[in-house]
Amino acid sequence: QLLQELVAFTQPKLLAGRRVVITAGPTSEKIDPVRVITNRSSGKTGYAIARAAHEAGAQVVLVSGPTALPAPHGVRRVDVESAADMHAAVMAGARDADLFIAVAAVADWHVANASGNKLKKNASNQPPALQFAPNPDILAEVARLPDGPWCVGFAAETENLHEHAQAKRQRKGVPLLVGNLAQDSMGGDTTTFVLFDDQGIEELPKLSKTDAARRLIKAIAARLPRKA
Amino acid sequence: QLLQELVAFTQPKLLAGRRVVITAGPTSEKIDPVRVITNRSSGKTGYAIARAAHEAGAQVVLVSGPTALPAPHGVRRVDVESAADMHAAVMAGARDADLFIAVAAVADWHVANASGNKLKKNASNQPPALQFAPNPDILAEVARLPDGPWCVGFAAETENLHEHAQAKRQRKGVPLLVGNLAQDSMGGDTTTFVLFDDQGIEELPKLSKTDAARRLIKAIAARLPRKA
Repeated sequence: QLLQELVAFTQPKLLAGRRVVITAGPTSEKIDPVRVITNRSSGKTGYAIARAAHEAGAQVVLVSGPTALPAPHGVRRVDVESAADMHAAVMAGARDADLFIAVAAVADWHVANASGNKLKKNASNQPPALQFAPNPDILAEVARLPDGPWCVGFAAETENLHEHAQAKRQRKGVPLLVGNLAQDSMGGDTTTFVLFDDQGIEELPKLSKTDAARRLIKAIAARLPRKA
Repeated sequence: QLLQELVAFTQPKLLAGRRVVITAGPTSEKIDPVRVITNRSSGKTGYAIARAAHEAGAQVVLVSGPTALPAPHGVRRVDVESAADMHAAVMAGARDADLFIAVAAVADWHVANASGNKLKKNASNQPPALQFAPNPDILAEVARLPDGPWCVGFAAETENLHEHAQAKRQRKGVPLLVGNLAQDSMGGDTTTFVLFDDQGIEELPKLSKTDAARRLIKAIAARLPRKA
């Protein structure tokens, strides 16, 4: 524990003076006051990156969906539930940030006809007729901001990682996209990052999320434009 | 902490020699390998009841959906995700149990057309067309078992608690149903139980979940038929 803190304390201050906004965890979209649509993101990857950014000297705001994790030391956490909440919290901070890292597994849709009261099973036992509406694309929107932060996206895929990740990088318009295989990473303590940028593809080894996060912060710092 | 353990140790052994199956937490129904439909149950109420039953001398099996809680000391926990998993785990143990307490917030439906791969946003940005199919009614099925355990159900409602709870008790065919208001209880550390049985209604005071669970175990022990 003490050793870990020493290692953390002695990380190079590659992001000194930088303001970083990071999203983490799942979002949770209401069906009714009790039921939600969410995803299996534990938040561990995003929290590890927030910790690594703080270790590297950055001022970090972590916009987090519901997780069971404690806020990392020295990081300001903003708790949100839905993608709409996360969008609002990110947009409030993005304009003044130097770097935006979108790690959260944001729902693509919300339930347009969510109920204010708990849906009851009715006599005919009909399933609920859920109507979906698209959520804002937080990453693409931040990437389009004039004078906005440098943007890093994430793609957790279950198949065809390279193909999906390159397509996603183009679609979102971000300089760096980090891919990983959901089945290797979700909920666990290790992950394998694959970095996609204009120069091509760089595959990091399988590492603990803590170490993977530090490697990623180094890779980002090497690419980040100097402050104007 | 020591005082708490002394209090726990000195609880009257009202369920000595009884075998109890308890369900707790949410269930999680897959949409695809990443996305799920679930509910906001933290599992705290069910875990507190499992602890209280163990303190009262029972042999406890806790069938738990995904929660962030540690298994209570002395309790055998069986981890499940979907309502179908929970159904299988409960039916495997229910026939030999003296008491079944169904606290879990079980999904009424699962996604009939769940995908083996992560659903992609397609070019036309169409929302997913989810088809739902009903889940087994675990409590009603256990209550119908010949020589099955004595059954206690739970109803977390957001409105009209008394009306919904009495109707649920009839529909499920259980001798005791415990109602609470979801907005007062969910995720929090206190709860107000309202007991519905053949004799009428008994409202317990607002208590910590630990104390509410002990009061409930006393109320159950007073109603439970003597062993044959």
